[in-house]
Amino acid sequence: MSALAARRPQALLFDVFGTVVDWRGSIARALRRLLRAKGINKAIDAGAFADRWRAGYRPAMQRVRDGALPWTSLDALHRMILDELLPEFGLRLNEGDRRELNLAWHRLAPWPDAVRGLTRLKRGYLIATLSNGNVRLLVDMAKHSRLPWDCVLSAELFGHYKPDPEVYLGAVALLGLAPREVMLVAAHKDDLAAARRCGLATAFVRRPLERGVVADIADDPRCTFNADDFVDLARQLG
Amino acid sequence: MSALAARRPQALLFDVFGTVVDWRGSIARALRRLLRAKGINKAIDAGAFADRWRAGYRPAMQRVRDGALPWTSLDALHRMILDELLPEFGLRLNEGDRRELNLAWHRLAPWPDAVRGLTRLKRGYLIATLSNGNVRLLVDMAKHSRLPWDCVLSAELFGHYKPDPEVYLGAVALLGLAPREVMLVAAHKDDLAAARRCGLATAFVRRPLERGVVADIADDPRCTFNADDFVDLARQLG
Repeated sequence: MSALAARRPQALLFDVFGTVVDWRGSIARALRRLLRAKGINKAIDAGAFADRWRAGYRPAMQRVRDGALPWTSLDALHRMILDELLPEFGLRLNEGDRRELNLAWHRLAPWPDAVRGLTRLKRGYLIATLSNGNVRLLVDMAKHSRLPWDCVLSAELFGHYKPDPEVYLGAVALLGLAPREVMLVAAHKDDLAAARRCGLATAFVRRPLERGVVADIADDPRCTFNADDFVDLARQLG
Repeated sequence: MSALAARRPQALLFDVFGTVVDWRGSIARALRRLLRAKGINKAIDAGAFADRWRAGYRPAMQRVRDGALPWTSLDALHRMILDELLPEFGLRLNEGDRRELNLAWHRLAPWPDAVRGLTRLKRGYLIATLSNGNVRLLVDMAKHSRLPWDCVLSAELFGHYKPDPEVYLGAVALLGLAPREVMLVAAHKDDLAAARRCGLATAFVRRPLERGVVADIADDPRCTFNADDFVDLARQLG
């Protein structure tokens, strides 16, 4: 077996928010669209709104991970954060508008290379999500953007959020593989580090535009692969 | 809302073995191929072999449902049944051949209308499996035959086999829907009856060739839809 073959996994698991889809741009556009539709002529920094919404995600998940909250889907956490966020931005939205805005997370736009890269990777590998997004959110997103997953795997299936090991090891078990036969693909080095601690191979994908600020896109020497995007990853995997 | 719209679900869950794929013909072909490859010139009724393998499935699952066995994946149950079955047919196979033959369940051929019908149904509905097959089995099958599922749902995710209500209600919960917004599509009236007891809508699809014997393909008046195949179901759903 060649050195490259030895490094080749059988299945690729993908982090989704930031790695496959552009949450910041998509959420900002969804907010602007809603404000326009409602005739709200308030000067809102939609990018900052998206950043604040996303910033609420880790603390909210942490409350679930600590047991302060029972298992709560990401849809429900997003909604809790949104309800706190709106007054901060001086926005008043009714129940229907809040529900609709919360669903913007189901329709995040993929990075330009994502569908092409995934389609290519799917020829040689089993490709699946491994996201903290709930199943329905991920399925809606895939349907909306034609993301060609072989399988939608979610933290929700394991009752644990990443980076809890139950998520990575649960996915590996459902695929009937050993951890070293599975590779996590992600734009976030902490997610990749947690997967490595469970024995998975890892691929870092640079997503410089994920946040409004400069992102850490330096090669991660602990990863088996470092790639510019999914098409580059497909090329490296051969 | 028209009468038809009222009957229209948002998501369709599909039983798989017999409903989407032809297990009997596929298993018989896999056995014949293996015997040929091994130069075993024994006169074996491959259809009867498939029937006996499948006949072991309900009692094996029942042992899990009764708690006599801990949770055991369908792959593992299939293998237990196969190991008992081979001596009955006077067959001696080594470990590698047994493992390979067991994987034939991952590569069952779809009925001729299945991919076309599912592709059409996918345009208007969320389509997912709801099978006692384990996740990896269902994912391999989808990849092998290009079954265009939005999502692969399996009894394995719930630690219960159909017809336990946990399976139907677990799938409905993952989809974020009410039971009446979800429809089970199946060729087996007992599966459909169990789904109806959980509040799901049901569609009976006739698969007269599933078994070597005449199947019950009479309309089921308790079902919302009765269809000749998936293309017919797509036509009726509009």
